[in-house]
Order: sequence, then structure tokens, then C-alpha cells
Amino acid sequence: MTMLTNISGFPEFLPRDQLAFNKVLELIKTQFELYGFIPLDTPAVERVSTLISKGNDNEIYAIHRLAHAHGCKKKDLALRFDLTVPLARYVAQHYGQLTFPYRRYHIAPVWRGERAQSGRYRQFYQCDIDVIGDGELSLAYDAETLSIIYHVFKTIGIKNFVIYTNHYLLLTGLIKSFDIQESLIPCVMRTLDKAEKISQDALVGELKGHGMNQNNIDVLTCLIKNSLTNEELFQYLLGICSNTDFLKGVCELKEVLKLLQNFGVKDSYIRIHPTLARGLNYYTGTIAETKLLDFPELGSVCGGGRYADLAGSFSNKTLPGVGFSIGISRLIPKLIQSGMICANQETPAIVLITVQNYKFISYYIEISKTLRTQGINTEIYLEQKSLGSQLKYAHKKGIRFVIIANESEIFKQQIILRSLFDGNQWTLTMHQAIKLIKDASEF
Amino acid sequence: MTMLTNISGFPEFLPRDQLAFNKVLELIKTQFELYGFIPLDTPAVERVSTLISKGNDNEIYAIHRLAHAHGCKKKDLALRFDLTVPLARYVAQHYGQLTFPYRRYHIAPVWRGERAQSGRYRQFYQCDIDVIGDGELSLAYDAETLSIIYHVFKTIGIKNFVIYTNHYLLLTGLIKSFDIQESLIPCVMRTLDKAEKISQDALVGELKGHGMNQNNIDVLTCLIKNSLTNEELFQYLLGICSNTDFLKGVCELKEVLKLLQNFGVKDSYIRIHPTLARGLNYYTGTIAETKLLDFPELGSVCGGGRYADLAGSFSNKTLPGVGFSIGISRLIPKLIQSGMICANQETPAIVLITVQNYKFISYYIEISKTLRTQGINTEIYLEQKSLGSQLKYAHKKGIRFVIIANESEIFKQQIILRSLFDGNQWTLTMHQAIKLIKDASEF
Repeated sequence: MTMLTNISGFPEFLPRDQLAFNKVLELIKTQFELYGFIPLDTPAVERVSTLISKGNDNEIYAIHRLAHAHGCKKKDLALRFDLTVPLARYVAQHYGQLTFPYRRYHIAPVWRGERAQSGRYRQFYQCDIDVIGDGELSLAYDAETLSIIYHVFKTIGIKNFVIYTNHYLLLTGLIKSFDIQESLIPCVMRTLDKAEKISQDALVGELKGHGMNQNNIDVLTCLIKNSLTNEELFQYLLGICSNTDFLKGVCELKEVLKLLQNFGVKDSYIRIHPTLARGLNYYTGTIAETKLLDFPELGSVCGGGRYADLAGSFSNKTLPGVGFSIGISRLIPKLIQSGMICANQETPAIVLITVQNYKFISYYIEISKTLRTQGINTEIYLEQKSLGSQLKYAHKKGIRFVIIANESEIFKQQIILRSLFDGNQWTLTMHQAIKLIKDASEF
Repeated sequence: MTMLTNISGFPEFLPRDQLAFNKVLELIKTQFELYGFIPLDTPAVERVSTLISKGNDNEIYAIHRLAHAHGCKKKDLALRFDLTVPLARYVAQHYGQLTFPYRRYHIAPVWRGERAQSGRYRQFYQCDIDVIGDGELSLAYDAETLSIIYHVFKTIGIKNFVIYTNHYLLLTGLIKSFDIQESLIPCVMRTLDKAEKISQDALVGELKGHGMNQNNIDVLTCLIKNSLTNEELFQYLLGICSNTDFLKGVCELKEVLKLLQNFGVKDSYIRIHPTLARGLNYYTGTIAETKLLDFPELGSVCGGGRYADLAGSFSNKTLPGVGFSIGISRLIPKLIQSGMICANQETPAIVLITVQNYKFISYYIEISKTLRTQGINTEIYLEQKSLGSQLKYAHKKGIRFVIIANESEIFKQQIILRSLFDGNQWTLTMHQAIKLIKDASEF
């Protein structure tokens, strides 16, 4: 008998956490579908050639048949490492059969061959929404997708979060206006990308190294630290730069913010962060990241933005899009752990029917059928154990109500309903019991 | 640009079929949870040693990091090939933290390295329920799990199906009573397992080859072809054999059938099939298979039964269980294809708000918020296209209602609601529109 242990990087849940996790996923899915986003579920496996076309081969898990001694040589299939490459492949492949704009969501595991010792997940869920246009895609979708992210966080009960937003052209236009070498612009953006993680001195040192003068450095450090309201910041920005790209970026960002208000997003949750870079070669417009103020250790729990072309390497169509990804595998366990999401039930059932006397089993089963017909998740305890054992079982699993019926209740077509939350109990008809259970469970 | 094609054996859906597939999955999950079954979601990856402990190494997909030239040598991780081995590993590993009897369901993909040319899936969903006891597990769970299978098929709209049931001891007891060599019993069962696929002559020939006399062969062929009712068959069986195992099997099967009636399963859907074998070395009690009469080509779409010990190779506890698995990856597409499950929507939205004039975008967004607050899945068409294009989009996606609002409606705080099913349209307040949409959608 070997000792069984978790495989490092491949987490799994016990029942309480699994139920809580699924409940949050349900809330998220419901939000996505409220906006008409279509579920997608591509296979876990893609061609290696598809995956490495996005230039990310270091952490890809290839698959091959175990029994084939030489299977290793034929590295043609591998597990996806994100949900964006499969989306690009899917949209390119099924272009003629999709209706555009194509809104899709995809909640599914991805796999990355991280070193085990780094403590990172090697299988984790991604939770993505994207809208893909055929040739064009209005700026309003940037606001729609961001508003969905906002409503998702609200719906799952998170109060303190900030969506940091920026625009690719705003930042690149600003840097271009500094009159430094074109080739150094990506270096400046890389430096800004890590601005929060390095010291002020290190930051200034790097920027100087990229050939920036003190004035320009002051502008950037001031923007990094800014505590202006969005409105004030827009005013300020219009005064510091007249680069065409920059002005386009500011203008589009203003429009997105205006639409976000229409979508019911409170302005206090959105903060313009003009030095937010989020990588270099993918996004082309709006970019955003979300942070939870109560859990700064999580870093960004949601990121994404606008891109000019989803599937350049698979299709000759131009497919602009905008999308965001929520890191639920890190987020949800943290919310459970902090008590923000409740995980006190070990079963979806809210009623346990105890079996007092096996000869009345058909009565107990009849009761269970009645409850289930009403949509009430119900367990029967089908082992012949003492009532004490059965109540203990119900307590342990966090079941809210137990039903007890002895000969006398059965004779009168009644049951005893006991609440395990407060110990109260009532002798009731099934009709009365159903009403009480439904009321208590806010059906 | 490479031509993109499906990877053989790894199917994926277009939006309509994906939505229909998910809808069926939702119905199944709801049924499972009505009975208090707990969702489980183990990682896709298990240790190779865990997987091959069940003796199934030929079709296992191992994984290794693509960039590691020598990664192949270390074949320690692989994709699961079913959901039973992960369940056994999970229950053994978390034994101390689970409450027994442990009811779990698991709906997730599994991977098998089938040869591509055989036309079989290499990734497919399994949909499993099992109840695991700690040391003991009452026979009533056999009836509960089977009744769930029955209600699942009913709920997803299948009318013509038969659940063939048998008992391991009934069949092995009967064969033992034939007084053939003990070592030939598995051979007889293997022959019975394929009885439907071979000719009568071939069947008789094989049984003779296993040393059976004509009398015994007559008993078996008579049982294979039997058209008795369950009640008549029980009578018949009690007359042909007095082997202890056999009698215990008959007796347990009778009890399961009685309980199934209590659980609301109509007797006509259950057929005792005394020669049903379902493999040899796993099941120890009740066994069952489900076939759809309208789709005989699908063969068995659900199978399973009772086993004496789930996790013998991982645990020194005795963990008896009973469970069934539905082959949804073959079943659901067939139901969609036949029209039994409707797949005429390309979006979860039932309303499309058209954008007649972009300057009123805030009004359109306001309407969308109102509808979503009422739980009505709603899309807005955010591109500036003609109304004709927008209606075409709604038609193409199978959206039921469109909302149109021009200056005059907006001025009166009204909207035009048009049904794309019959072309009717009404000028309404939002309050009236919500009522009409909800009534039509049977909220």
C-alpha cells in the first residue's frame, strides 16, 4: 500500500470547498449568460504546432501514449496552457459557422509545466470572456466586458476592489513624445510593468538607462503615484502631451468610462492608471487589471483588454477583440478561506430523511419523492443506524433540516421536521413542511 | 497559414450544440443534487502508478514537459482514463475527511489513447454517480442510484429506454450449478458477455467448448431470449437452480426491484436480464445497463453496478460501493441530431436590444440593465449597423425577441417589442415588456 499524497501543483477540493467553488462558478456563468455570452468548451488537447505558434513552448505539457516506447518522438499533441490560443484556433477554424460579434465565455482548466518547487499550480482554472468582431468591433464592447467583470465581483460578494484601466496608445504615445529612441520604448514599458515591485531609485535608474531625461522621468513617476480622480487625471493628461496616439488613447478611455457608468459601474471602482502596461505585444487599446483591496497578496485577479487581431497566425481575416480573464483557482479558495464565501455544507442537500424503522422505508422514500418534486435537495439515510448516528451524520454534513417519522406520525400522515440550526422541531403535514423548508431556504 | 482541422478523436461543438449539451448537463446535475450527491472535480492528471494499478496501461496518455528533451524517460504523470480510479484514489487519500456513506457525482472529460482510425473519441465526457460506504453499504443504495439513472433519462426527455439488470451472484451461482470446471466459469461469462454480437451457432459452439452439456446450454439460451415479465422470470428462476449464491442474487435483485418501485421507477422500464455479465472482475452484486430503443446503434448508454471494494489497492479499509456511468459524449449529440433535444439557439440570450441611434446608447444600456435585473438573458447590438442587419443577426442566432426604440418611443419611455417567432410586435412600457417576455419564456 503506497502512501497517497497530492501531486504538487494539482490541487483538489474536499466536498465543502468544492460545493462553494461550484456555487461561485454558477454565479459567474449566470452573469456571463445574462449578457448573452456563449459557452465554449474546446478539447484540452491542441496540436503542438497550434500552441507554439504563440511562442510559449517552455511550459507546455505534451502528451503521448504510455505504452508506446517511441511515442515520445512524435510530439504532436499537447495540453492547452491558456484559453486564448484555443479561442483563436476555434474562431479561425469555424469562422464561416460563427455569428459575429461572437461573445464567448470559457471556464476550464489549463495546464502549465511549472517547476513543482515554485509552489505554482500546474493545473488551474481560467475563466475567460471575449468578444470577437469580424473586421471591426465597437469600443462599446470594451465597456460591456469590463462591466461584466465589475458585476461578477459584486455578485460573488466582493466589496473592496479596484479595476485599474489604461489604454495602450495613451502609454505608448506618451513615451513616444519623450523623444527617446524608438527601439527603447519596449524597454521603458517593461520597466513600468514592474514599477510596483522595484524601489523608486531602481525605477529612476532604469528609466535613465533607457535614455530618459529628468523631466520625463518626473512625469512618469508622478503618474505612477497619482491620486487624482479620473476626471482630474483626464484634465491633467490633456495638458502634458499632444502626441496623436496619446490623445486617441485618452479619448477612447474617456468614452469607455462614460459607457461604464451607463452599464451601472460605480466610478469609484475604476481607476485610470496611465502607466499600466500589461505586457507589450498583444493589447492595442483598453487594458485593465483588477485588485482586491482586502487581499493585496493576490496581486491582479483579473486582467485583459483590447487586441487588434485575435488569430493572425491562423486566419487571413482581421478579428479584433476584447476580453478579460479571472484567475479563479487562486481567487475562490482565498475567498472561502477568509469566510467571505461560505463553505459550511458538505452536501447539496438541505433535508435529511432519517430512517427510523426500515419496514417503513417506502414511506420515507415517498417523502423524499415529494420533496424532490418541489426542487428541494433531499438525502435519505439508507443504512439501518440509530437516530443518534443519523443526526450526527446530518450535523457533520451541515444539513439544515432532518425529517423524523415513527409509526404514530406515519399513521397520521405527518412528519417531525427538526431544524439543526436552532434545534426547533415541529409535527407537520408534508404540505406544511415544504412551505417551512422553502421559506427558510429563500427559494 | 496552415489549414486548421479537427484533431481526430477530440470533438468540439459549435454554439448551438454546445448550448444544448450544457443544458442537458445542467438537467443531469440538478437530478444528482436533488438526491444529495456531492460534486467532485479531481485534477485531470494522476500518477502513472495510480492509473496502472488498475491494470489498464495500454491506452493511457502520459504527459511530460515539451521543452525537456529527456522528459520522456520520467513517465510519472498521465491523464485519467476514467473517473473511477480517481474516485478510488480520492476516497482512500481523504478517507478521514469524508463522511460516509459518501455520495458523489463527477462529470468531466477523460482521455484514452485510442487509435485514431477506429473512429472512437480520445477525449470524452464521463458522467458518474457512486455511493461509497465505510465497511458496509445497504442494498437500498443500489435502488437509489438506479432510480436516479431512470429519472435522468426521463428528465432529459427520453421515453423509450430499458434498464437491463442482473446480479453477479445470480449469474455466477447459476453457472457454478452447471457443474463445469471452476476455471472455465470466466470463459462462460465472457461468452455470455458477447452473446448478442455472435450467432446462435457460435454461442452454442463456444459454450460446448467450455464443457457445458446441452441441458445447461438450453437453460442459458432460453434465459438470453427470455420475454417473461420480471415477476414471471423470478418464478421461473427459483425453479431452475438451488445454488446458494444464485438464490442470494435472486433475492437481492427482487429487493432492489421492490425499492425501485418505491422510488417511482415504472416496472416496464426495468428488465431482468439473467445472462448480463458486464465484465468479470469488478462488480459483485447488482449490475445494470441502459439501452435506448430508438437508438439501438448506441448500444449501452449507461452501465454500472455494485462492487465489494472500491479502493483495495490504495486503502486497507473496505469500501463497498455502487455506481453508474452515463456515456454523455455519444448520447447527447445523438439526441440533438435526432431533434429530441432542441438546439436552435446560438446564444443564451432571449432578447436582443437593437441600437437604432448611437446617441441613445445610454437608453439602450438602461433597458438591458432592467432586463438583466429580472434574470432575462439580454444582448445589446453594440455595432452601428442598419436595423435590417441587426434583425438578421437576431434571426441567425435564434433570439426570440428584439427590442426597438426610436426617439418617439424613448420620449414616451416605451419600447417596441417584436417576437421573431411570429413577427408580432407591441409598443410597451418596460414593465409590460418584462411580463410578456417572462410569460413567453415560462420563467
